[in-house]
Amino acid sequence: MTTASTEASPAMSDAPARGFSPEEFAGRTARAQRLMHQARLDALLVTAPPNFRYFSGFDSQFWESPTRPWFIVVPADGEPIAVIPDIAAPELARTWIRNIHTWPAPRPSDDGRSLLRDVFAGLPNRHGRIGAELGREMALRMPVIEFMALRDVVPGFTFVDGSPCLWQIRQVKTPAEIRHIRHICELASDAYRALPGLVSLGMTEREVARALRIDLARRGADSTPFLPVISGPGGVAQIVCGPGDRRLEPGDVMFIDTGSTYDGYFCDFDRVYAIGAISDAAKRAHETVWQATEAGIAATRPGATTDGLWAAMQAVLDAGGALGNNVGRSGHGLGMQLTEPPSNMQGDGTVLQPGMVMTIEPGMEYAPGKMIVHEENVVITEDGAELLTKRAPREMWRVD
Amino acid sequence: MTTASTEASPAMSDAPARGFSPEEFAGRTARAQRLMHQARLDALLVTAPPNFRYFSGFDSQFWESPTRPWFIVVPADGEPIAVIPDIAAPELARTWIRNIHTWPAPRPSDDGRSLLRDVFAGLPNRHGRIGAELGREMALRMPVIEFMALRDVVPGFTFVDGSPCLWQIRQVKTPAEIRHIRHICELASDAYRALPGLVSLGMTEREVARALRIDLARRGADSTPFLPVISGPGGVAQIVCGPGDRRLEPGDVMFIDTGSTYDGYFCDFDRVYAIGAISDAAKRAHETVWQATEAGIAATRPGATTDGLWAAMQAVLDAGGALGNNVGRSGHGLGMQLTEPPSNMQGDGTVLQPGMVMTIEPGMEYAPGKMIVHEENVVITEDGAELLTKRAPREMWRVD
Repeated sequence: MTTASTEASPAMSDAPARGFSPEEFAGRTARAQRLMHQARLDALLVTAPPNFRYFSGFDSQFWESPTRPWFIVVPADGEPIAVIPDIAAPELARTWIRNIHTWPAPRPSDDGRSLLRDVFAGLPNRHGRIGAELGREMALRMPVIEFMALRDVVPGFTFVDGSPCLWQIRQVKTPAEIRHIRHICELASDAYRALPGLVSLGMTEREVARALRIDLARRGADSTPFLPVISGPGGVAQIVCGPGDRRLEPGDVMFIDTGSTYDGYFCDFDRVYAIGAISDAAKRAHETVWQATEAGIAATRPGATTDGLWAAMQAVLDAGGALGNNVGRSGHGLGMQLTEPPSNMQGDGTVLQPGMVMTIEPGMEYAPGKMIVHEENVVITEDGAELLTKRAPREMWRVD
Repeated sequence: MTTASTEASPAMSDAPARGFSPEEFAGRTARAQRLMHQARLDALLVTAPPNFRYFSGFDSQFWESPTRPWFIVVPADGEPIAVIPDIAAPELARTWIRNIHTWPAPRPSDDGRSLLRDVFAGLPNRHGRIGAELGREMALRMPVIEFMALRDVVPGFTFVDGSPCLWQIRQVKTPAEIRHIRHICELASDAYRALPGLVSLGMTEREVARALRIDLARRGADSTPFLPVISGPGGVAQIVCGPGDRRLEPGDVMFIDTGSTYDGYFCDFDRVYAIGAISDAAKRAHETVWQATEAGIAATRPGATTDGLWAAMQAVLDAGGALGNNVGRSGHGLGMQLTEPPSNMQGDGTVLQPGMVMTIEPGMEYAPGKMIVHEENVVITEDGAELLTKRAPREMWRVD
């Protein structure tokens, strides 16, 4: 056996314990039920992996297969109820969930529908309303025609948009959730810092991505669903597509972003690297974006709004000669998803609360097709923003 | 720089060129349009990453963020039309798609809705029907309430279930697609074979998964969204949840499955390993499942049905004393998704055609809580099944 692939790094030994206590899940459920009461919901029906996992603690990479739907019903009172395919029953029985209904899936004629009908028939009906994942930044993980059919077989209830309620619940993280996010942020921070020792001039973007992907896994990241590596002379034209086969050349700015996970929680932040010597214009733009990040962090405190965060960063970018950018916002929530509400942008209007975890992500195009974007992850405390990432250096790391 | 992380393996040098020719996409579109004609559809509206990529060739890991919807409209005649967020415009312009509409997203008041309305208003209306991803094994990658609102602003058209048409198009692979799938299957076959040299008795499932994840990346896999590692004395109780912190012990059977990708195409097959010496009962069950796989491969030919495949494998499993299993089917389609229709099971009724890529996946519980499952990937040719994976050994590989 090779030792390289299994050696423990410092980050791995510092890792918080996996999973959460039954008390954590009971607390999440109780908080959900208070918000459901305000929203006049008799139940929440969830199908998407992050929501399923949030209430159950259950994880499966098998969600990659769209064949079988999975359901958790959170009633207004009492414990969550699982309605799941047989294939996962042995493992779901190991979570805190005690009320589990299963069926032999796939069964196209009735993939959970009649079980859900029976579950809803057994719930008290106060408001006649069930909240489902119908709204912004959510997608229903079941066929839409199956959802329509479900509506028709559940008497006495209307399905309404439960996403505002679900986002209200999930966007304020518990201390245990914050420990998880901090861990993956620190692990990725260390990997970014070490990267110049793993890569060199003349490598392709794809080779850089592979080296970083392997190093993140070695350090203890469970998965790396998001790892664009994008390079260009003095900056990049876009930040979401890549890596490609372009080779790193002197004068390039290399942009790398990663959403890696630890036990179901994401980091989401980027770093930029100078490939050899870069232009003074690129350096000045980098300084502007670095200062905009400082301004964003300073503006982040309970009671501030996402509009205010955007404005604080944009003022610095404008003063630095920003031509704009195509990202459309300067940060967002994160947690069990790479991106979650709210968005740092005009008109979002979210008031920040302690426990929210956010990206601070200003970017500017300083010349046509040359963009530089920074990103840090913070948790909001009573005193303001606390960094979860290890702050990017004021001068770019250099690759030769 | 380390050489380990960037060395080219034989598999990497054999990799087919990334991407596909404009002629490939034109051919896919023409085939879709023939099927749309039969299904009386004036257009297909697609939102899910595999469908978006199938028609455009465009890829982005940024689909991991659910904030912004993306759309391709395939009209009954003419080229596909993209309606996408600004953030991806520079890259989409590099694909074969020439008709591109963008908006500054996120824009909660109108995230693509008015652009789509205008696109549909410009299409000929012969049948009044637009096919959307509403059916089995598909999910709409946009909020359901946004889809409902879209229906209301598009005059003269009804949105119907386009998934039968989309699956008909996608389930028969082109030669270029098959080359991609074969490559990732061979790469993962080699990684599985090398694994006993990387792991040992006493390691945890999670450590085994990490070693294999790193090796797959080194060999050139782009990503590994699916990698359960599950161990148990003589067999496993389930095959979809893991890895955990269990340590490998003598007498264990270790089950590993992977869906890894190359340029957007998946493999999906498992391997089982004996940890030290295993029981005769486990060996007998393994032989039965190996023979069931042989029977499944032999039964796979054009004109056979998925029911027939299931029956051919089940006869061998029953004769070997199978108690059943909780998987619910014995294989399925694969391609741009880990699992795709059809399913090898009673009642599926799909007639196999050349170009379909399938998993052959028999499994049996031979004692309570002790299951053994095999899996190979094949492409259907005029002559029968052609293996894409390198066939599992008749005796389990052993880890000591």
